[in-house]
Amino acid sequence: MSANGLASLSYSELKIDALLVSWLPNVRYLSDFTGSNGMVLLAPDSTTLFTDPRYAIQASEESSAKVAIAKGPLIRRAAQAIKRKRLKRIGFEKGRLSYEAWETLKEMLPLGAGLEAVGPVIEEARMVKSPAEVERIRRSVGTNSGAFASTLKRIRAGMSEADLAAELEYQMRRRGAEKPSFETIVAAGIRTALPHAQPTANRFRDHEVILIDMGSFQDGYASDMTRMVFLGRPDPKTRKMYETVLKAQLAAIDAVREGVAASKVDRAARDVLKSENLEKEFVHSTGHGLGLEIHEPPRLGRKEKTRLAAGMVVTIEPGVYVKGFGGIRIEDTVLVTKNGCEVLTPTSKELMVL
Amino acid sequence: MSANGLASLSYSELKIDALLVSWLPNVRYLSDFTGSNGMVLLAPDSTTLFTDPRYAIQASEESSAKVAIAKGPLIRRAAQAIKRKRLKRIGFEKGRLSYEAWETLKEMLPLGAGLEAVGPVIEEARMVKSPAEVERIRRSVGTNSGAFASTLKRIRAGMSEADLAAELEYQMRRRGAEKPSFETIVAAGIRTALPHAQPTANRFRDHEVILIDMGSFQDGYASDMTRMVFLGRPDPKTRKMYETVLKAQLAAIDAVREGVAASKVDRAARDVLKSENLEKEFVHSTGHGLGLEIHEPPRLGRKEKTRLAAGMVVTIEPGVYVKGFGGIRIEDTVLVTKNGCEVLTPTSKELMVL
Repeated sequence: MSANGLASLSYSELKIDALLVSWLPNVRYLSDFTGSNGMVLLAPDSTTLFTDPRYAIQASEESSAKVAIAKGPLIRRAAQAIKRKRLKRIGFEKGRLSYEAWETLKEMLPLGAGLEAVGPVIEEARMVKSPAEVERIRRSVGTNSGAFASTLKRIRAGMSEADLAAELEYQMRRRGAEKPSFETIVAAGIRTALPHAQPTANRFRDHEVILIDMGSFQDGYASDMTRMVFLGRPDPKTRKMYETVLKAQLAAIDAVREGVAASKVDRAARDVLKSENLEKEFVHSTGHGLGLEIHEPPRLGRKEKTRLAAGMVVTIEPGVYVKGFGGIRIEDTVLVTKNGCEVLTPTSKELMVL
Repeated sequence: MSANGLASLSYSELKIDALLVSWLPNVRYLSDFTGSNGMVLLAPDSTTLFTDPRYAIQASEESSAKVAIAKGPLIRRAAQAIKRKRLKRIGFEKGRLSYEAWETLKEMLPLGAGLEAVGPVIEEARMVKSPAEVERIRRSVGTNSGAFASTLKRIRAGMSEADLAAELEYQMRRRGAEKPSFETIVAAGIRTALPHAQPTANRFRDHEVILIDMGSFQDGYASDMTRMVFLGRPDPKTRKMYETVLKAQLAAIDAVREGVAASKVDRAARDVLKSENLEKEFVHSTGHGLGLEIHEPPRLGRKEKTRLAAGMVVTIEPGVYVKGFGGIRIEDTVLVTKNGCEVLTPTSKELMVL
């Protein structure tokens, strides 16, 4: 994986001789290092990984980069390396490096060297996944859906939102996930109208609707899925809402293919909801990229101009939220292909009545 | 809780009229807001919380601060508020604010306003916990030890490190934790010599030693504990190592009291290990503060001059790591008091043979 981002980085276009990478997911992407403290100095002819003594063995086992062990702050060790290599124009990740680290770097570098603020170039390189990355995401998605399937049969009235979340996360881990890719959302009844509900001690009641939004991290790669579960047959209005959101989700999936603007996929979902006067209840965007992070570019939002490319992996997750009544969201993880997309999530989207 | 940090912030000493706080744990500390996107503008006569529309309801429910909802980046909304309030000298958290956000702020502020780089003043205020915070940590510690106790009886040869980690985390959640406060460490045999081991699929064998380092987040507050478990009676060398580390841990606990330099507590543990020629195998510091984060100041390290104060909550966790043989670490969470400390962790430290 560690060769992915390099080919597409244009030093001359960025007017830099080297790029100092401080954002951990980018560090991992470029070096395969999984520790909690690391920086990478990327130059056309070398990749150097900086970390601390705790990770000395692990870094050299995981990474093919040159490993430099720092006793103090990594930024100081990186500045020394820049000086020694006589690099002149040093790019840094402006959205990630702290003001303090930037100041340290500026003070430590020789007068002849300069710092160049660089945007999310590594994040952009990360948008298109390599086949090995797609395989990891596929496994993560499989783990996630497996955890859902084995938990489904235990859901019943009397169980609490928090209990169900705990059970789902336990099942992920049993299947090889390191951890959830975000705090599992389990919300029942009118709490389904909160897009970011945290699980409570509230117990499920008969005929309640339950929203489950869950994801795993496995081998560092994320998955993300939302499903609705009904404890008893839903009333006609809820059923109609479910069908409409599913139609919107399928329309968005249908719009995904290489070359299409991300905004167009969002539009496809929004148009279906509009036909049922539900477009104002859809308060977020249709999806987001995922990989080493649970939220990555591209965002599938109204104004997002990024064009999809084969190898991108994104979520498709329209939803509607009616305050005091409830909400419906349906979400899959999909792989963009040349002629369309592959829905990676194997879990059924038929209305699930327990 | 939201009044804690304010009293100790000296605007005049810092030469600022207001402080823009961007580090989420600090935002939560100052405003009680638990969402994932927030900033606080702290001025002598007002506290303003900035967040996005997803959190509009939650922010006003959780926080007594004035809530301002931003449609775009929070930093731009904060800059507008600063302009409107005609504040002149704006402090920002130099170790936390990104270069890009700093640049945006600088460009948006009127010529007459200036930015002042400020160190970890909120983190320093957070070191001493309020009684309400201590209560939350106490509950988190109780949850964590409860999860350990109920899992202990299931540990046996044939179980994998990853299975045990999954079980421990499940039990935390069942007891009310939101999530682990860090990735649970379970390491067996010679892998106990890695201070930061990640759980593997390796299965426990008879007569193996197991290191478990686990913590919970409950109501936002962390706990942290390490215990050793022996599958069958340990050999004399391992037993001697265990007794020595325990002696070091008790010596460090004995050194804790208001007014003592953090380095002196570290020294107390190190001296015991030195008497057994194990000081070089103790490759980290004796402990760290915890609260809204799992690692907070003060660090109980060799050179740490911070003096302990009643109300600080720290870990005491000496360890020795012998490559190719194994390691021992014993860790409690303790509350500093005027005349000593209270060990919050209720779990026994007697040698546990299963």
